Amino acid sequence: VSEAPALIAIDWGTTSLRAWLLGRRDGRVLDERAEPWGIMRVPDGDFAAAFDAVTGAWRARWPGLRAIAAGMVGSAQGWVPAPYCPCPAGGDELAAALTPAHAGALHVVPGVADLGEPPDVMRGEETQILGAIERHPALAARSLLVLPGTHSKWARVADGRVHGFTTYMTGELFAVLRDHSILGRPARDAEREADREADPADAEAAFARGVQAARAGADGGVAPRLFATRALVLTGRMAPASSVEYLSGLLIGDEVRAALRAVPEGAAGALALVGEPALCRRYAEALRLFGVDGVPVVDGAARAGLWHIAVRAGLVAAGDRG
Amino acid sequence: VSEAPALIAIDWGTTSLRAWLLGRRDGRVLDERAEPWGIMRVPDGDFAAAFDAVTGAWRARWPGLRAIAAGMVGSAQGWVPAPYCPCPAGGDELAAALTPAHAGALHVVPGVADLGEPPDVMRGEETQILGAIERHPALAARSLLVLPGTHSKWARVADGRVHGFTTYMTGELFAVLRDHSILGRPARDAEREADREADPADAEAAFARGVQAARAGADGGVAPRLFATRALVLTGRMAPASSVEYLSGLLIGDEVRAALRAVPEGAAGALALVGEPALCRRYAEALRLFGVDGVPVVDGAARAGLWHIAVRAGLVAAGDRG
Repeated sequence: VSEAPALIAIDWGTTSLRAWLLGRRDGRVLDERAEPWGIMRVPDGDFAAAFDAVTGAWRARWPGLRAIAAGMVGSAQGWVPAPYCPCPAGGDELAAALTPAHAGALHVVPGVADLGEPPDVMRGEETQILGAIERHPALAARSLLVLPGTHSKWARVADGRVHGFTTYMTGELFAVLRDHSILGRPARDAEREADREADPADAEAAFARGVQAARAGADGGVAPRLFATRALVLTGRMAPASSVEYLSGLLIGDEVRAALRAVPEGAAGALALVGEPALCRRYAEALRLFGVDGVPVVDGAARAGLWHIAVRAGLVAAGDRG
Repeated sequence: VSEAPALIAIDWGTTSLRAWLLGRRDGRVLDERAEPWGIMRVPDGDFAAAFDAVTGAWRARWPGLRAIAAGMVGSAQGWVPAPYCPCPAGGDELAAALTPAHAGALHVVPGVADLGEPPDVMRGEETQILGAIERHPALAARSLLVLPGTHSKWARVADGRVHGFTTYMTGELFAVLRDHSILGRPARDAEREADREADPADAEAAFARGVQAARAGADGGVAPRLFATRALVLTGRMAPASSVEYLSGLLIGDEVRAALRAVPEGAAGALALVGEPALCRRYAEALRLFGVDGVPVVDGAARAGLWHIAVRAGLVAAGDRG
């Protein structure tokens, strides 16, 4: 690294930590590090030591270089509890609510709370949303951003701020049903019998079949359809090895059904997927099966969001922005 | 026991086994035994030995006495695989499809399959349904019978036969979310801190709140509401100790919502709950919160159903019926 850096940006979640050394020219990446030190897996629970291990060399070489972090590091179980910022929340609101830590070397982005009925909370996704807008300014005016994951978020954005959102715990629901319920048994048995994976084409077809079942179930929702995952196998209408992909399609399909239903026709503005590309592609396919084609996928949003918030907060001097 | 018995009836499920010695006068109970020998817990997996241990003394004293069993004992993981009988299925169809075993000493009732789209299966509940009709003949002509449990069934009955049904895996979904997901964490933490149980009045209120949330969510279904169980705690709107009761209300409420929605107004006929009284009362309360009042609860249905099917099958001689 020869160019002088402007910021250290950290995406610090439940399962991993990713840090970037960002340059003065619009926050381009000069260096990066990743560790499996999510907040539940920090060695000895010593967050400060983990932070120093990841950023120490950079900060020793460029004294005064500041760091910004977003994600579960700001939760009650994390390092620096950062209270939720209420909706509507954009770059200015988040920048004004940063929580300083580690003698000012680190600033932690707050989560965002939708205090409607029922209430909802996010932590980390608010930064990805701002980053997605930063990367695709057309999404700022009015959009519905979908962030698939363990706890998927569907966020309503207007004028560059998050106005409300709904969490679908689809990823976690899938994992607990696959690993602990009777619905995962055929796949667990198949795995034991070394028939490890379904054929990719079969898997894709089973996923689509699950999405279609969720769509056909319409407003009954997923409750009357879940057990069909087992009944289809018991009645010989589905191969045991396909049933987990069917379940995935059923749950993602129900999320898409419920979320599209919650948006008045035409009111959503642009729709975009934000997050890990492979998972986003599954959602794009599910959306396509619901008649919503060509939804773009935005990657690298966390880093862009961290840069955006740091700029708003003055952690990156105006002259540094190139 | 001085009166000569007419039949041994066995309800043999996943977690337990219950056997009754039934008398000639309409199958009244002369003696009974219960063992924790569900099909997954039979000592050494030796079903025949378990059967002999439970019924041996009775059969030694009254040679030729026959036994009938229903439940998971007839599944592929059980003792005597008994293929599914397709809908519509009543006493005659089930009696004609019994599977004999153990040199004719035992007859096993088949499960029932609804071969619609999606398909569905039951095993054990078909016997409870016939027993409920036997005990309350007014339910035979047209009714919707609700059998709450790990895999709840809502069965459409007409002319004394099961014409179709839908499984809601509410009980299992609740258990895996409580024990393995983030939604159960507050309750698991509270338990560790020896603050073992919520106040009963608080628990009842939290259950009702969950049911009301499912009702308010209407056709969005449970997917956009699940995570609220956590968000309500994180935003200080619900006590951590109440959250599991709220989750129970939310899931049972969504089952009731979806199931009532599937029945055209007025088409259901009589509605009745069949099964374990405490769980049935929870469902009766949820139904009440949906505006459906005074649903009767039918207990002892398995035994009555076993007697009914045995009579139809001629396992109980006509002269024995009093």
